[in-house]
Amino acid sequence: MQPRILQVRQQILKKNDELARALRTRFAEAGVFVISLVSSPGAGKTTLLRKTLLKLAGHLRVAALVGDLATENDAKRLAQSGAPVKQIITGTVCHLEAAMIESALNDWDLNSLDILFIENVGNLVCPASYDLGENLRIVLFSTTEGEDKPLKYPTIFNTSDIAIITKSDLAEVVGFDRHAAYENILNVRPGMQIIELSARSGEGVDRFIDLLTHRSKIPAEHADAR
Amino acid sequence: MQPRILQVRQQILKKNDELARALRTRFAEAGVFVISLVSSPGAGKTTLLRKTLLKLAGHLRVAALVGDLATENDAKRLAQSGAPVKQIITGTVCHLEAAMIESALNDWDLNSLDILFIENVGNLVCPASYDLGENLRIVLFSTTEGEDKPLKYPTIFNTSDIAIITKSDLAEVVGFDRHAAYENILNVRPGMQIIELSARSGEGVDRFIDLLTHRSKIPAEHADAR
Repeated sequence: MQPRILQVRQQILKKNDELARALRTRFAEAGVFVISLVSSPGAGKTTLLRKTLLKLAGHLRVAALVGDLATENDAKRLAQSGAPVKQIITGTVCHLEAAMIESALNDWDLNSLDILFIENVGNLVCPASYDLGENLRIVLFSTTEGEDKPLKYPTIFNTSDIAIITKSDLAEVVGFDRHAAYENILNVRPGMQIIELSARSGEGVDRFIDLLTHRSKIPAEHADAR
Repeated sequence: MQPRILQVRQQILKKNDELARALRTRFAEAGVFVISLVSSPGAGKTTLLRKTLLKLAGHLRVAALVGDLATENDAKRLAQSGAPVKQIITGTVCHLEAAMIESALNDWDLNSLDILFIENVGNLVCPASYDLGENLRIVLFSTTEGEDKPLKYPTIFNTSDIAIITKSDLAEVVGFDRHAAYENILNVRPGMQIIELSARSGEGVDRFIDLLTHRSKIPAEHADAR
């Protein structure tokens, strides 16, 4: 990259980092735990998130922001859960930025939330560089995409906390090599926590939700008592 | 986007367009037809390209450039076809640019080629803005990604000439709505040519190859006579 381009890019990232830091402080003060989801297009972020919102909505105050270049389709799908949902339309921008999150939250009272989900634009490259102030970043990839994705998109796996292998119900039919997938994830990020699930069949979804509630440090008894 | 960022971005794109134009002239002079492939990660670009190189290698002089953030895995897979293949490693860059193509072709004699394939980085957003001097841009999306992708990533469909629906062998098991997919593609780009295929089962691959040889305007008799 040319020096000037590099400089401009570094300035953008620095500004984003500052905004993300401010967001993180705001989230902590409001007591809201923030989880972002990143993946390729079609890995199943929205389907999993919809199911998760439905399961959590009964005993936790959950909400979601969802990024896409175009359409409000995902927000509509997620809103069926009854949780507050807002679509962020990025136009030609290939990722969400902290400023977009800040602006989308303008008219929301964060104190009234326990968990806020942020679904990024479907892209395994660009979202890696943009901190959104989240507490937990989850990268999803599907059995249908192939086991090599962690090696080919290492940065997004490196900047994520948990890896989810989605569409586990299709693993057999596509000849998914589970052992190779785990090896590739762990090569890129040793010790990374991995969950396999199918949002369609439901397999593994409860384990995922247990993990989220555990990580968000909200005791189940407390949550149920709301 | 801030005005300065926008200005820098426009300068990059302008420079890329100029380089792409020069490449296109060079390709025409050398009589090589250039086809680029764009898609999400895991839509099946490499699998289809490998099969295509294998089928064409007997009677046409074919070669491939393949872009990835990391690893030479794809180049190795493609080289099994016997065709000349070169990997372009982009590092953190989310797309190929004309300058990368120019530099990768430095030590290749274009006059000795009939068709050059360029496989872009797996990304449905960023590659849309970068002309590589190709004659034909093909966008692939798989039945497992869902029918809504053309609506959610309209620019890449708009800048492509042909849409390929891959993994047709999985259409039934994932409940792929073929009608909705066609409607979404044609809404974004009316009249766009669509081919369904499965590189794994082989279904539709011959039709795809016929289309390529037809579009590259190399009569089959001539090609076979080489």
